[in-house]
Amino acid sequence: MKNEGKLFGIGVGPGDPELITKKAIRLINEADVIFTASSTKNDYSLALKIAEPYIDDNANIQSLSFPMIKDKIESGKAWKNNAEIIAKKLREGKNAAFITLGDPVTYSTFGYILTAMKNVMPDANIEIVPGITSFHAAAARCNKILVEAEETLAIMSGAYGGENIRSIAEKVDKLAIVKAYKNTEDINNALKETGFYDKSIAISKCGRQGEKIIDNIEDLEKRKPDYWTLILAGK
Amino acid sequence: MKNEGKLFGIGVGPGDPELITKKAIRLINEADVIFTASSTKNDYSLALKIAEPYIDDNANIQSLSFPMIKDKIESGKAWKNNAEIIAKKLREGKNAAFITLGDPVTYSTFGYILTAMKNVMPDANIEIVPGITSFHAAAARCNKILVEAEETLAIMSGAYGGENIRSIAEKVDKLAIVKAYKNTEDINNALKETGFYDKSIAISKCGRQGEKIIDNIEDLEKRKPDYWTLILAGK
Repeated sequence: MKNEGKLFGIGVGPGDPELITKKAIRLINEADVIFTASSTKNDYSLALKIAEPYIDDNANIQSLSFPMIKDKIESGKAWKNNAEIIAKKLREGKNAAFITLGDPVTYSTFGYILTAMKNVMPDANIEIVPGITSFHAAAARCNKILVEAEETLAIMSGAYGGENIRSIAEKVDKLAIVKAYKNTEDINNALKETGFYDKSIAISKCGRQGEKIIDNIEDLEKRKPDYWTLILAGK
Repeated sequence: MKNEGKLFGIGVGPGDPELITKKAIRLINEADVIFTASSTKNDYSLALKIAEPYIDDNANIQSLSFPMIKDKIESGKAWKNNAEIIAKKLREGKNAAFITLGDPVTYSTFGYILTAMKNVMPDANIEIVPGITSFHAAAARCNKILVEAEETLAIMSGAYGGENIRSIAEKVDKLAIVKAYKNTEDINNALKETGFYDKSIAISKCGRQGEKIIDNIEDLEKRKPDYWTLILAGK
């Protein structure tokens, strides 16, 4: 039997350090090394800031460079490189925690690690610990039912504007649109055209410093919304 | 200023008692009274079982009758009655925790409480604490990416069979189908027709005693699946 370590992909939740699970706290404490992803432009990790209250002063924290590039080949290489750094630790018998904002399998950088690990170390022992997502936190923050009874909820990205919304609106009851930080005029128009506008609300940096709840989402057009802006809408 | 208590709608997560947030544990401890919903047919509360390790022996726990009836008027009356029991506690200045499986605003009984409270006590101070949902826990359990990059994920109920799936399949990349416990043949047919079948997996009672991971979802037709069965699928 090999004496290899285990990789834990851990969601630390949406921002409020209290919205982390008991399991995440335990595994962060038990890990031999804690990995975080930081953009190549700065080495600041939001996940690390959220988990900070639970990390020992002597913990071994290692920042992995997160490539902010569109080129798939270059980006793939960078993630492969990161996966190799993690695999090396596992082969040394160390347990590693990769901490990530929100949930590790919902629009998360951990998805890239998971894919890269399959190539770099196919037999790696990997366990994922779910975290509270931004849209669950936002619905809770606004006392809003996200989805109920036999309704359908679509979770989508707003990065390309209102196209996705127009395409799906007729088929669903509720919408959660993450990354609603650009093309906001088109997003708003799509919500108006499809009957989702009246019951919509936006929230930026939910549960974090600088949180903003935007009741009238037309205001999104007037300001430059933060990257961490999402819209919840219903019919 | 009135001296009224506050109602906390608290998600205790999908089953594993470690998948509860630090905030949920704190508020359950601080509450003057803990409410749970139990079916009118039995007074067993799954949420209570999950939260048990965090509940003091002397805690004041009150079970609210959950109407298992289709009739909307009768069901509405029962929830109004439950909301009145909660409102009475709040008016006495007590803080109340209503604990619920998974997340309080995602296919949850707390949604009925939230709606009824708006009528019974419109100025009630209510705070919702999000919880890990079954589909997030299931994706983590199966090391499966739920949704990534610019993909769209539809969260839906399988209670009416494959109709919802056929209607939305073309527009989305990923599916999470909760309550996949009846009409499973029709659900499977819909997944086959729409190209979602090959990358599908079912899971029953995720993270709880009796958990089953069903790689070949055709097996769902052969057994009588548990109510707590969900399907994750992709293209």
